[in-house]
Amino acid sequence: MNNSENASSPKGERAPADYFTGTTWVKMLVTADDIFNTSVANVTFEPGARNNWHTHPGGQILIITDGVGYYQEKGKPVQLLHKGDVIKILPGVVHWHGASPDNEMTHLAINTNTQKGIVEWLQKVTDEEYSSK
Amino acid sequence: MNNSENASSPKGERAPADYFTGTTWVKMLVTADDIFNTSVANVTFEPGARNNWHTHPGGQILIITDGVGYYQEKGKPVQLLHKGDVIKILPGVVHWHGASPDNEMTHLAINTNTQKGIVEWLQKVTDEEYSSK
Repeated sequence: MNNSENASSPKGERAPADYFTGTTWVKMLVTADDIFNTSVANVTFEPGARNNWHTHPGGQILIITDGVGYYQEKGKPVQLLHKGDVIKILPGVVHWHGASPDNEMTHLAINTNTQKGIVEWLQKVTDEEYSSK
Repeated sequence: MNNSENASSPKGERAPADYFTGTTWVKMLVTADDIFNTSVANVTFEPGARNNWHTHPGGQILIITDGVGYYQEKGKPVQLLHKGDVIKILPGVVHWHGASPDNEMTHLAINTNTQKGIVEWLQKVTDEEYSSK
């Protein structure tokens, strides 16, 4: 088994416009399989960029590695993210994440229990929702 | 639920001498629970440091974030690790990891399927085994 890959830059592929506002880069580090039930990606949001509202059927863990970003769960205030922050997103919780208006934000996204599903995309985060911070 | 923690330095707690040779620092970022079935730690091995031979009943993913290190599976050659390398360790595979003799090595250790167990420690990696690279 070739169990070695390399996750150095570049920033990966551009994330799809249907599910992201602004410019976001996704580099897959580990693809989900039936043994580890886990995927890992390095995600870089350019200033102002964010993903749509969405849920993870098996949960997700974010580890912020650079920059300043936003995280919000439905019905709660926007939370400011800095390098070193760790966010645990429970299965089924409606949320979004992204960069702050003036800074990039990079995080590792660890999808857990991927046998239950990885992501369910919902509506876009409006400018009004984004600027509620 | 308080789902926010911070994973910035310091390097955490010193790893136990029974299972590690040399000086290694472990900072827990995410503790395993019954929902995510995943733990995440930031591990820094000082030059020459390594863990014992061991296995992970639920598997483990390593993401090298700094320095130069070693990884070996039983019966295979020692593999050199650099920043950006990703190692997937199958459940039950006997292995060890650590720094190279002249450089620190830091990795994220993601333990998957922790409901099956996290780690089973075996014998120390001898100087002869370590210097076989």
